[in-house]
Amino acid sequence: MRIDIMTLFPDSVDAMLGVSILGRAQARGYITIRSHQIRDYTTNKQKQVDDYPYGGGRGAVMQADPLYRCWEHIKEESGDPNSYTIFMSPCGRTFNQKVARELKAAHDHLILVCGHYEGIDQRFIDECVDEELSLGDFVLTGGEIPAMAVCDAICRMVPGVLPDEACFMEESHWDGLLEYPQYSRPEEWHGRKVPEVLLSGHHANVAAWRKKESYKRTMARRPDLFAQFDESRLTTKAERKIFQQAQEQEND
Amino acid sequence: MRIDIMTLFPDSVDAMLGVSILGRAQARGYITIRSHQIRDYTTNKQKQVDDYPYGGGRGAVMQADPLYRCWEHIKEESGDPNSYTIFMSPCGRTFNQKVARELKAAHDHLILVCGHYEGIDQRFIDECVDEELSLGDFVLTGGEIPAMAVCDAICRMVPGVLPDEACFMEESHWDGLLEYPQYSRPEEWHGRKVPEVLLSGHHANVAAWRKKESYKRTMARRPDLFAQFDESRLTTKAERKIFQQAQEQEND
Repeated sequence: MRIDIMTLFPDSVDAMLGVSILGRAQARGYITIRSHQIRDYTTNKQKQVDDYPYGGGRGAVMQADPLYRCWEHIKEESGDPNSYTIFMSPCGRTFNQKVARELKAAHDHLILVCGHYEGIDQRFIDECVDEELSLGDFVLTGGEIPAMAVCDAICRMVPGVLPDEACFMEESHWDGLLEYPQYSRPEEWHGRKVPEVLLSGHHANVAAWRKKESYKRTMARRPDLFAQFDESRLTTKAERKIFQQAQEQEND
Repeated sequence: MRIDIMTLFPDSVDAMLGVSILGRAQARGYITIRSHQIRDYTTNKQKQVDDYPYGGGRGAVMQADPLYRCWEHIKEESGDPNSYTIFMSPCGRTFNQKVARELKAAHDHLILVCGHYEGIDQRFIDECVDEELSLGDFVLTGGEIPAMAVCDAICRMVPGVLPDEACFMEESHWDGLLEYPQYSRPEEWHGRKVPEVLLSGHHANVAAWRKKESYKRTMARRPDLFAQFDESRLTTKAERKIFQQAQEQEND
């Protein structure tokens, strides 16, 4: 998986994506993330990338040409005819784990375009962008933070990036449920004790407790997600019993 | 508005929040953003902040104590009895512009806690966290990217941070609509022309066109948002006419 990020703030993007799990995955060659300074593709001495919006209004709009030249350079450099270009925009389809999985399955090369100021020239979007993606229904200064989120969510699923697939299969939203509570040492902290079952060493009971907490938490906090849970996935009698107990306890 | 961010990657957070609009707003004293290295609050020589999860399973869990000591330090330093602590978590309430406005209105000091690894000890959450917030239904490596998004969305609304309130009142999601397309110079680019009305200099027509495009785009891309649009806000005959035209054009 290769991801190129077009931005006015490549150093800031690199500072976040170059550390921790994604930093190590790049060093080991599992993924390639490159950020590109859009200003390097201007033809004016001031390296100006924006100008007044036609029709008036405050702020500035990023012009099509520097964006296009940067994009063209990335396309040529990658040589991948299936490159897929995403503009991070509050007007786009809402990003979630399902979208992340789709994108990872369908493409080996993504180009993420980060806008800034009051937006980017619509003609660049019409000509070069395959899809607009939104991180959520809120307003941010630029596309950098959303692009980093998309990059992180997708790269985590690339084989080798996490030590084990189980690492992400247990996490919130992977299977449409919220994750169970976690506890680490010490056994007692500020008078608060770790739930006894977790200290029991009884693996089946631990697994059942975690599953039940996952169901209960999802029911309580995200009834919208819980409503989408597919009960036909519960193939054993024991699984159905845990599911039923969680519902009873939550309804009490 | 003061925001403190508890993280294992303060340099990465600072590299993003220290530039552009938020960087300038901090330099001018409109907002204060501080990131804190949780490792500095450990009591062991290795500065280890995590340990195995009770009950088994892969990965590591961030322990309650270093988090607590970091949190306590921030609380004491700020002296604000109304500090509000948010844990960035996929199990939380989904963040959006409405939540951003609520938080900004209700608090002058936020503490954003970023987890990493497989999560943080539930007892820290139970003892210190006022609310869990999620950026969306996807899995990320840590809470840093979500925390930066929350920080950005809230700080942009602080008076003085943007040159003019109108800057954000026109943007997507501010009024429950997606933003209209933007164009900047040149008038023709790659054979694509700027819509004529934007070159007309006729302010009322430009405003009407933009509003109509905003309605049409929201209808086409986000029928869920459009369904929530309150038509009683259209107080003049002209406003109602634009709204009606947009619906007719979109239904064609």
